Amino acid sequence: MSKTIDVCLSPELLHLYSFGEKLVVVVDILRATSCMTAGIANGVESITPKANLEECRALKSEGYIIAGERNGEKVEDFDLGNSPFGYMNEDLKGKKVAVTTTNGTVAINKSRNAKEVIIGSFLNLSAVADHCKNSPHNVLILCAGWKGRVNMEDSLFAGALVEALSDTHESACDPPLMTAKMYEAAKHDLIGFVEKSSHVNRLKRIGIGKDIEFCLSIDKYSEIPVLKGEKLIKL
Amino acid sequence: MSKTIDVCLSPELLHLYSFGEKLVVVVDILRATSCMTAGIANGVESITPKANLEECRALKSEGYIIAGERNGEKVEDFDLGNSPFGYMNEDLKGKKVAVTTTNGTVAINKSRNAKEVIIGSFLNLSAVADHCKNSPHNVLILCAGWKGRVNMEDSLFAGALVEALSDTHESACDPPLMTAKMYEAAKHDLIGFVEKSSHVNRLKRIGIGKDIEFCLSIDKYSEIPVLKGEKLIKL
Repeated sequence: MSKTIDVCLSPELLHLYSFGEKLVVVVDILRATSCMTAGIANGVESITPKANLEECRALKSEGYIIAGERNGEKVEDFDLGNSPFGYMNEDLKGKKVAVTTTNGTVAINKSRNAKEVIIGSFLNLSAVADHCKNSPHNVLILCAGWKGRVNMEDSLFAGALVEALSDTHESACDPPLMTAKMYEAAKHDLIGFVEKSSHVNRLKRIGIGKDIEFCLSIDKYSEIPVLKGEKLIKL
Repeated sequence: MSKTIDVCLSPELLHLYSFGEKLVVVVDILRATSCMTAGIANGVESITPKANLEECRALKSEGYIIAGERNGEKVEDFDLGNSPFGYMNEDLKGKKVAVTTTNGTVAINKSRNAKEVIIGSFLNLSAVADHCKNSPHNVLILCAGWKGRVNMEDSLFAGALVEALSDTHESACDPPLMTAKMYEAAKHDLIGFVEKSSHVNRLKRIGIGKDIEFCLSIDKYSEIPVLKGEKLIKL
């Protein structure tokens, strides 16, 4: 195995990792990167991550669909919230979306200087794994977490991807081994385990249980969003 | 369950946690907090964590035994390195030790403002669990990690303590659930799992395999070091 895989469990730890020469897989399972995967798979032309609500609003007059949530809830004057089902609307095909979310867009913006930045989710797990196998670069999975804290669902995805790459990529540090062990123990009842998570309970309180189940579905899509300049487009 | 338990996986994330009212359990399994546990259990009067080598050296003339490692290896002019076996020397009974280590002392110094700071290791796991049960305070386990990164052995200890407190303490966030799941999956072959870790391989290269086995032994001691002012003493 000549390639390595590493896992950064929170954007707050990213300064400890060198990633300029790496393929970075950004993951925010609930729900930013699941939405991005669903959107690109459903024909959205591009998704532009923005740091805040104002930057999104500014793009509205340029014909962008604007999407955003804060603390899990849709921003009132925005077109879309942060539900993958919102991204499946036929009207979005060929459209440009500008999005800001609590954690996911922060992670994407922090990893811009990587060799390549792609978007991972359970929805496109196998496609992401295949792309990593075919890439010449070492892989760093960047978990978006929750306001800087380590979270369960992003770590589980990291473990799933480490497991999928176990024949081709060597663990560079402990977090790949740790997340793979956790995923191995949890994968037979992923929803049951994730339902214990604090963020999931936060989301359930705002009534989006079906989003959670969807975001934990494996390999619904084979498309991968990739960052080109400011935009995520189909790889 | 009226008390909570949380896990901070790296001192670099501690700013995200409020711990002023908490009982903080600092853990650096390989090897700082294992040494501290062994030392206090073997009759060392006090262990004073110091930020750097110079601060330790300054205490030598005041009669302190000075202990320190950098990158796992004993500092040449120091009395002790970072092996728990070094702390079992009969000559250390009743003595004061000043210590600096790569990760453990950093974690202790960062958590000073907690309600109470105690030292945890597999060596005193059940004693620490009992103290948490008897304490009125919520618990935060602070993993020392490796130069800011999350590591396996400290996270496993966190999971072990969460499991031991599962009847009395509710998880405050995801990391307690994550580390408990990992510990549950790994505990039947703890040494086999930890041997895959990067830090363990680093330590093995410098020839301290027997330290690792010892540091993963559960409940060798019932003593708990507690921070009083600048010093760790027997609780």
